[in-house]
Amino acid sequence: MLGGGAAGMSAASAARRVDRGLEIVVLEATGWAAYGMCGLPYYLSGLVNRPQDLLSYPPEYFRERRRLDLRLHAQALALDVEQRVVRYHHEGQDREIGYSALVVAAGGVPGVPPLPGLGDRPTFTVRTMEDAIALRTLLDAGAVGTALVVGAGYIGLELAEALHARGCRVTVAERLDRVLPNLDEPVAAIVEKHTREHVELRLGVDVAELLAEPGFDVVVVCAGVRPASTVAGDAGALTGPGRALLVDDRMATSLPGVWAAGDCVAPYHRVLGGPAFVPLGPAANKTGRVAGTVAAGGDATFAGVVGTAVVKVFELEVARTGLTLAEAQAAGLAATATDVVSRSRAKYYPGMQPLHVRLVHEAGGRLLGAQLVGREGAAKRVDVVAAALHAELSVDDLVAFDLSYAPPYSPVYDPLIVAAQAAQQELAVPV
Amino acid sequence: MLGGGAAGMSAASAARRVDRGLEIVVLEATGWAAYGMCGLPYYLSGLVNRPQDLLSYPPEYFRERRRLDLRLHAQALALDVEQRVVRYHHEGQDREIGYSALVVAAGGVPGVPPLPGLGDRPTFTVRTMEDAIALRTLLDAGAVGTALVVGAGYIGLELAEALHARGCRVTVAERLDRVLPNLDEPVAAIVEKHTREHVELRLGVDVAELLAEPGFDVVVVCAGVRPASTVAGDAGALTGPGRALLVDDRMATSLPGVWAAGDCVAPYHRVLGGPAFVPLGPAANKTGRVAGTVAAGGDATFAGVVGTAVVKVFELEVARTGLTLAEAQAAGLAATATDVVSRSRAKYYPGMQPLHVRLVHEAGGRLLGAQLVGREGAAKRVDVVAAALHAELSVDDLVAFDLSYAPPYSPVYDPLIVAAQAAQQELAVPV
Repeated sequence: MLGGGAAGMSAASAARRVDRGLEIVVLEATGWAAYGMCGLPYYLSGLVNRPQDLLSYPPEYFRERRRLDLRLHAQALALDVEQRVVRYHHEGQDREIGYSALVVAAGGVPGVPPLPGLGDRPTFTVRTMEDAIALRTLLDAGAVGTALVVGAGYIGLELAEALHARGCRVTVAERLDRVLPNLDEPVAAIVEKHTREHVELRLGVDVAELLAEPGFDVVVVCAGVRPASTVAGDAGALTGPGRALLVDDRMATSLPGVWAAGDCVAPYHRVLGGPAFVPLGPAANKTGRVAGTVAAGGDATFAGVVGTAVVKVFELEVARTGLTLAEAQAAGLAATATDVVSRSRAKYYPGMQPLHVRLVHEAGGRLLGAQLVGREGAAKRVDVVAAALHAELSVDDLVAFDLSYAPPYSPVYDPLIVAAQAAQQELAVPV
Repeated sequence: MLGGGAAGMSAASAARRVDRGLEIVVLEATGWAAYGMCGLPYYLSGLVNRPQDLLSYPPEYFRERRRLDLRLHAQALALDVEQRVVRYHHEGQDREIGYSALVVAAGGVPGVPPLPGLGDRPTFTVRTMEDAIALRTLLDAGAVGTALVVGAGYIGLELAEALHARGCRVTVAERLDRVLPNLDEPVAAIVEKHTREHVELRLGVDVAELLAEPGFDVVVVCAGVRPASTVAGDAGALTGPGRALLVDDRMATSLPGVWAAGDCVAPYHRVLGGPAFVPLGPAANKTGRVAGTVAAGGDATFAGVVGTAVVKVFELEVARTGLTLAEAQAAGLAATATDVVSRSRAKYYPGMQPLHVRLVHEAGGRLLGAQLVGREGAAKRVDVVAAALHAELSVDDLVAFDLSYAPPYSPVYDPLIVAAQAAQQELAVPV
């Protein structure tokens, strides 16, 4: 295995389940393995106390209980597919290791735009545990009065919330004139308004100019993630969207004896009907498990993703699945969208919150995606549409779903059904 | 329309949308129309202040904006199908009204066991607004120090919670040796334990004996609901499970010119593949809408239920969909169940709660149902399985669902996927 993140450790553990006697070596470039990268903002904010709390298991567990040869600070350098040998750097030396099957789980790397002035101050990307620990050390020391977050995507807003929770004055700077490019604009606008209630948000700005200003103690760069350039890519493995490794449904790359998983691959997207680069935790774990199982001689397939994601932005739950309208139109689909504002609970039940639902659908009624935003009821409700997308269902099916009702949890017509009823009306009207 | 509850008013409103000129008369036996019956416990507990807050709209709205001739305190007496005439009692007189199309939405009536001693004290069933108002008046007057709730089903436990919230000493008495007969025993046992932390629960008791004891200021009977005996039933309409009216997918009864909806019908159950008596709010609204649309000459069909329900019991969310193991076995299916205890959030995220998931499945892997219990994350998560049941999916499909993940809302493997993975293991083992 190359990579000891979620995908790599899932692969190694799955391989162990298939073959109790297999020799399994994991080379991890950093000093940490098997941590929940999605937990880093909560470690920074102080909600999670110790970096160890983010580990699914400590290294000793993997080494002793699962008998994995986990080598930390081991950086892969090159791959010889013919000879089945990986060259890597470990403990000050270049070394080689042979393999019969290789799983590449190199993960993603943060994009860092080449901006003049970047690096004049302490700068972080918070993609590794080491980076998060360094930033938290500064926070704990009271050394961060003001922070500049570059990028207003998922991670940028999560980190803005975390730094705000630590009492920093936070400015979020984004080159685009909007937040969350993974959502359609009307939905992102709700998040934008909410974010402005907590931190300063500067959209459509020249970040280089901002960096020239004094007055930021630290800079956190959240300018997107791209697949790590892998030894497999260098050895000629085919790549696809976002230059991520192309894989089949058993996670085989185009190179013999080489499988891949996690944020460095472009798995099958069920709604798009082709590969997509969607670097998120659940797919990393699942593709890792499949790659490890198959590489060890077992049988498994990955059914693909539908593009489901959720993020907490201050008090808002922000969820999406499938395609946004922009993504659907970019894919050449005859898509439209329906927006409704419904409620998270019965209208008379205390604590009820508005819930914004956007459904994206094709002219014939096929569901393509959904986006939900509200103070409660968005995060897991989106999964109902994810299920519908898995089964290629329509707006009519969603209207007919028998969804749970009790006043503390939902109106009698669930917000998804309200949205689907509205979509039925809109689709029935000849354009 | 006969009945001004959720189904009747949905039917009347739907009929108005189909035909702007139609004369629409609604005969409602009580003094209230279009209220959320599921909200009555929260009116009793004081979470909802006024009975009017439970109305979807006030009577004037229906009368003026929707031009419905809503007659309250109008009790249907008999139906002449040949002549298309309904005889009813209103304002002290027996009257007759002709119709071209009739929708029967008579609702359900609470079962009241013929127990000696019942009626010696103020006794309530809390199925009508009038009954709820009478009980709340006693509560507001401080006249209820102790209360006996007869029956430990959904409604019994909801009312126990409501009375407990008002400071009453509550005893729940149940003839069976368990709570919530709509859940499988291992799941019900979790709810039982939790309920005992708040009120006295006496299971497997002779309720008549208990009624002979002094010391209860009021008795609340929650011994199940049966379909109201309707004029349609008396006129010979075919009935099915629970003696509820049989209907087709357009809500037509076996009588010409007579449709039916709500708690007095047995709609199609998609998992059972036949009619079932499942008297719950969402189906009442939806079947009402279909019946009213079709009765007024429009086109609509009801896709059926899958048996989804959720109830709040003190701090627990208790949810089910599809069939319980007991129901599946009673239906002759080769069913088994898989139980797991997962988590509502990432294990390191503050506030994480255990979440119990039971999946019910057929030998071949087809999903039959799910039950979820926990302090958070059960109510709407069950809808993902409801969607899967709608599409007749399998345990393998559920494993493959692309469900949302962020540490505040879910572990990276959603509890449903954890349960489905465990079910895969169990189903793979030859019995």
